Amino acid sequence: VADPPPDPADPHPAGPHPGGLVDLAAVRAAADRIAGAVLRTPLLAAAAPMSTPDRPLWIKPESLQPTGAFKLRGATNAVRMLSAEQAARGVVAHSSGNHAQALAYAARAAGIAATLVIPDPAPAAKVAATEALGARVLRVPPARRAARVAELVAAEGLTEIPPYDDARVIAGQGTVGLEIVADLPDVDVVLVPISGGGLISGVAAAVTALRPGATVIGVQPELSGHAAQSLREGRRVAWDPGRTFRTAADALRVTQLGTLPWQHIRRLVGGIVTVTEAEIAGAVRSLAFAARLVAEPGGAVTTAAALYHGGQLPAGRTVAVLSGGNVDPRAWLDLLATGAAVTRPGG
Amino acid sequence: VADPPPDPADPHPAGPHPGGLVDLAAVRAAADRIAGAVLRTPLLAAAAPMSTPDRPLWIKPESLQPTGAFKLRGATNAVRMLSAEQAARGVVAHSSGNHAQALAYAARAAGIAATLVIPDPAPAAKVAATEALGARVLRVPPARRAARVAELVAAEGLTEIPPYDDARVIAGQGTVGLEIVADLPDVDVVLVPISGGGLISGVAAAVTALRPGATVIGVQPELSGHAAQSLREGRRVAWDPGRTFRTAADALRVTQLGTLPWQHIRRLVGGIVTVTEAEIAGAVRSLAFAARLVAEPGGAVTTAAALYHGGQLPAGRTVAVLSGGNVDPRAWLDLLATGAAVTRPGG
Repeated sequence: VADPPPDPADPHPAGPHPGGLVDLAAVRAAADRIAGAVLRTPLLAAAAPMSTPDRPLWIKPESLQPTGAFKLRGATNAVRMLSAEQAARGVVAHSSGNHAQALAYAARAAGIAATLVIPDPAPAAKVAATEALGARVLRVPPARRAARVAELVAAEGLTEIPPYDDARVIAGQGTVGLEIVADLPDVDVVLVPISGGGLISGVAAAVTALRPGATVIGVQPELSGHAAQSLREGRRVAWDPGRTFRTAADALRVTQLGTLPWQHIRRLVGGIVTVTEAEIAGAVRSLAFAARLVAEPGGAVTTAAALYHGGQLPAGRTVAVLSGGNVDPRAWLDLLATGAAVTRPGG
Repeated sequence: VADPPPDPADPHPAGPHPGGLVDLAAVRAAADRIAGAVLRTPLLAAAAPMSTPDRPLWIKPESLQPTGAFKLRGATNAVRMLSAEQAARGVVAHSSGNHAQALAYAARAAGIAATLVIPDPAPAAKVAATEALGARVLRVPPARRAARVAELVAAEGLTEIPPYDDARVIAGQGTVGLEIVADLPDVDVVLVPISGGGLISGVAAAVTALRPGATVIGVQPELSGHAAQSLREGRRVAWDPGRTFRTAADALRVTQLGTLPWQHIRRLVGGIVTVTEAEIAGAVRSLAFAARLVAEPGGAVTTAAALYHGGQLPAGRTVAVLSGGNVDPRAWLDLLATGAAVTRPGG
């Protein structure tokens, strides 16, 4: 892949992010570090009609991780890279979603104290789930969350583990890509959800290094298509939260790629497809009744791309990364009901 | 384990079934034979509150097999044990359920012709699914099914692959037990659904040989408790189909254990627990929203036993075998709605 032209809005215009892109060696080291602490998920062959002769389809079900999402990989890698001194002081992050539970889980497993700064109003269930994993939870007004983390870093010497804009986290997420190529060495297309961009950055680093002929494609909801627009325009754009908030894919409501993910995506990713809310619902339903998996809407976008946007994708052996399965039961059941209405446009 | 007293109703009262019980060597040979053709399922650690300090719980999700149930293991082992001459003539079975699709799938993967005798009235979806796997489907009145299979064996030289009363099939199902002990060597309790008894026979053969301290416990719906009654009374009893048909666990409506499974169960199984329909619904709901798995009601009985009948089970590290995930969407969604009402009786 030739380097794209410099991006004038990029904070690191002279080249890669300081420290460079995450490479295959870093992902392999992460795999060794997290082995046994994270589920080695299987690759599931989808049955017809999800799978077709033109596009044999496999699902990588990260929804089966102990905390229900791939986030456990990056958090575990980051926690296990701490120095003894850092580990003794503990870690901190601001998140109310899958990263909060992943970091709490990873820290507990390593015997390290975790503090999660959760913006109010936060769902009581998410606060309780994070506290149940032994983490200290501090609730703050949303506008205060980054400042509160900075205060804790300064006052208590905590180490911040960001959800995606971090080389340790990206290397951990990249183990998904290592496992895909190990299980399906002749994979042609890997579909990965994009929110802040950590998962696809790591997966692309691993897959493009191991199998240069394969294409890694990002998937976003139409209602949160900031990365698709960024790739199209060659600059890292931000969307308004009032816009991204409309998608049912709550895990994909981040409004802008991280700077380090953006460096990976512009160099390593072959394209970004967007899917409609009706297509997401259809994919959630197909995953439930044809693959027997409970997918969160954000995790189902890749299956939606395979089912409904085949014409925009390279042909061949395709893996859809199902990134998570943490759902609100009522909302998920409602989505299943609407999913019935989606029809499939040919191959 | 001391041999139990002879069973007067047993067709083989002098000792074990001709050929003896399936042993660990047979299960290990099956594992080698089916490797690569069947999913090596992971063992999933359940989160609190499904898992408790007294009973840490893992789920063995056979629902993730390509045909949605463990049946693929036994069918694949049996198909791969055929002589070249038998393979050239093809296989036959009567079934309208998970065994039909498993045999069709296993035969197609081995390049062998499969005939499935399906009793009418059969759901069109099941007939279509079996035909989509390349099998010849013959529909007959229910009373004719065994005779029709016998005719095909005589007239066409087909080899019958029964769903559970068969040492090849039992050895294949036993690979579930091998994998459980490989992933959790200090397992204490293994919970297995019982219908005709093939799955628990193979699992008990493997688990009790590899870990004599572990207890294998069967689970049935109260509405289809023929095996529980058989073990209690020391004889292989049959229930009326009009009785077993009332359970939502359609995969567990078989009315009597097979003779070979009965030999295994009376010698190797530590007990059989029965669960209510409400408990099954509660387990289906817990599996969906706490483990992110779509379980068929018959597959969820083991989780129901762990959640609601802990007092009847030995304590310790427990594995619930989730045997399948093939559901009718409408019926499954209705069951999820009723599942909310079940409360958990303590530990």
